[in-house]
Amino acid sequence: MMPVAIGAAAGPGDDCAVVDEPHSDPLTLLKTDAIVEGIHYLADTAPERIGWKAVMRVVSDFAAMGGAPDRFLVTLALPPDRQVAWVDGLYQGMARALEWCGGKLAGGETTAVPERSAAVISIAATGRVARQHLTLRSTAQPGDAIYVTGRLGGSFASGRHLDFHPRLSEAAWLVRHFKPSAMMDLSDGLAADLPKLARASAVGFTLDPETLPRNAGVETHAALNDGEDFELLFTHRGNPQPFEAAWRTAFPEVLLTRIGEMILPNELPITPGGWNHFQAGQ
Amino acid sequence: MMPVAIGAAAGPGDDCAVVDEPHSDPLTLLKTDAIVEGIHYLADTAPERIGWKAVMRVVSDFAAMGGAPDRFLVTLALPPDRQVAWVDGLYQGMARALEWCGGKLAGGETTAVPERSAAVISIAATGRVARQHLTLRSTAQPGDAIYVTGRLGGSFASGRHLDFHPRLSEAAWLVRHFKPSAMMDLSDGLAADLPKLARASAVGFTLDPETLPRNAGVETHAALNDGEDFELLFTHRGNPQPFEAAWRTAFPEVLLTRIGEMILPNELPITPGGWNHFQAGQ
Repeated sequence: MMPVAIGAAAGPGDDCAVVDEPHSDPLTLLKTDAIVEGIHYLADTAPERIGWKAVMRVVSDFAAMGGAPDRFLVTLALPPDRQVAWVDGLYQGMARALEWCGGKLAGGETTAVPERSAAVISIAATGRVARQHLTLRSTAQPGDAIYVTGRLGGSFASGRHLDFHPRLSEAAWLVRHFKPSAMMDLSDGLAADLPKLARASAVGFTLDPETLPRNAGVETHAALNDGEDFELLFTHRGNPQPFEAAWRTAFPEVLLTRIGEMILPNELPITPGGWNHFQAGQ
Repeated sequence: MMPVAIGAAAGPGDDCAVVDEPHSDPLTLLKTDAIVEGIHYLADTAPERIGWKAVMRVVSDFAAMGGAPDRFLVTLALPPDRQVAWVDGLYQGMARALEWCGGKLAGGETTAVPERSAAVISIAATGRVARQHLTLRSTAQPGDAIYVTGRLGGSFASGRHLDFHPRLSEAAWLVRHFKPSAMMDLSDGLAADLPKLARASAVGFTLDPETLPRNAGVETHAALNDGEDFELLFTHRGNPQPFEAAWRTAFPEVLLTRIGEMILPNELPITPGGWNHFQAGQ
């Protein structure tokens, strides 16, 4: 139902589509993403925070491919009674986010939705990634170590989902110095996202959920399932010690946690029931 | 409220944003456009026609800049009860449209809107235009003749707004052989769109609404105001006879009508009241 990436280097399900013209370098990344009132934010959320979130969700996807954001197009589908001040606030939040990430606003459009319909904010953006830095989900192998940045869970309850800073500089450092064997961002929660990465790579995985880095007051189940962490999930091949030491020097304030290992797929089939094995402590 | 085109060759209000990297040729065009249930189509409209329209609106914008479509990203914001068969039909319509215009589907995403909210279909696309073919709204001059393709009015009543073919090949021929001094597509109706082109070019215009090419059964007022014609509105500088003769040879079945002339702005100020002067027969 979701066709992806005709003439693209990336397989279905990667964070962005990749336009792979022969010999082009950097490659162009394309991403579209929508947030909906009542689903991704509440009607009384400050519009500046909504605008920030709308842009940063897309920036996180570019980061997860090893790239950087470029041009942004904004489509607002708004009910007829929406105040101009609300739209101004939204654009202020988007402008702050674009300034932070180096993106540029290239255009926008507003259309109406019928009364009592939810507002929809749709962002489309181009990004760039050097061909040698492009990092996919589908290239992990058995034996690779699995890492996450930061801490997981509680994003909605804490409001972090509205104010987060994508791991843009961390991802840029990774692809330059210790290019991950596979990478994605955590948007749906580790319990949903790690199986996606494993399936894309046709490998299995093993980890102990009790060792996951959790935000304060967050239970393991929430750390696995809350979603909207917008942390990096990636795999590393080779000796972990020099990599982890270099990370601590480069990002002393950003927690990096080795949470598990990729394994052969037949060691533990990735099926709808597969994750529950882990939750049961297997 | 609608910032457009940072680092772009096109001024605000052109049909697409233009990414004007130094020395790049062709230039990249960016466009985003959303259609909303209950606004741009009805809930019982066949999804294949909705998908066709969603893509073709964007194709018409690329044509109006002298360019061609390239990659498309689709964002669907759908109520939870939407049937898979409806989404399949939508994608079939989009696939047919992309085949017709030579565009490629590069990705897509579906998100939920709350129950009873209107569905929103947002299309983001990249296009290409040779630097020498880029045609803007802002470059008409007094003395240029004003043309429209096809016939105007009645698009909603006839269902044409769901099945139209954008003037892609006509626009491509124009920019190669008789490059218009300015061009846009007619989406909001001539009464709204011609003043936009005139304002962008800082010129006035004169025309006799009674001579407009109208669809069967359409009154002059409807031809001016219905909108969604998706015809080309452009200006031509120089001798009209060889141009019109060449058009008739190239497109014998596509009506081309000289509807008026660009004039000095102070001959007739373009103000909110300006159009009414014409309707009054001035």
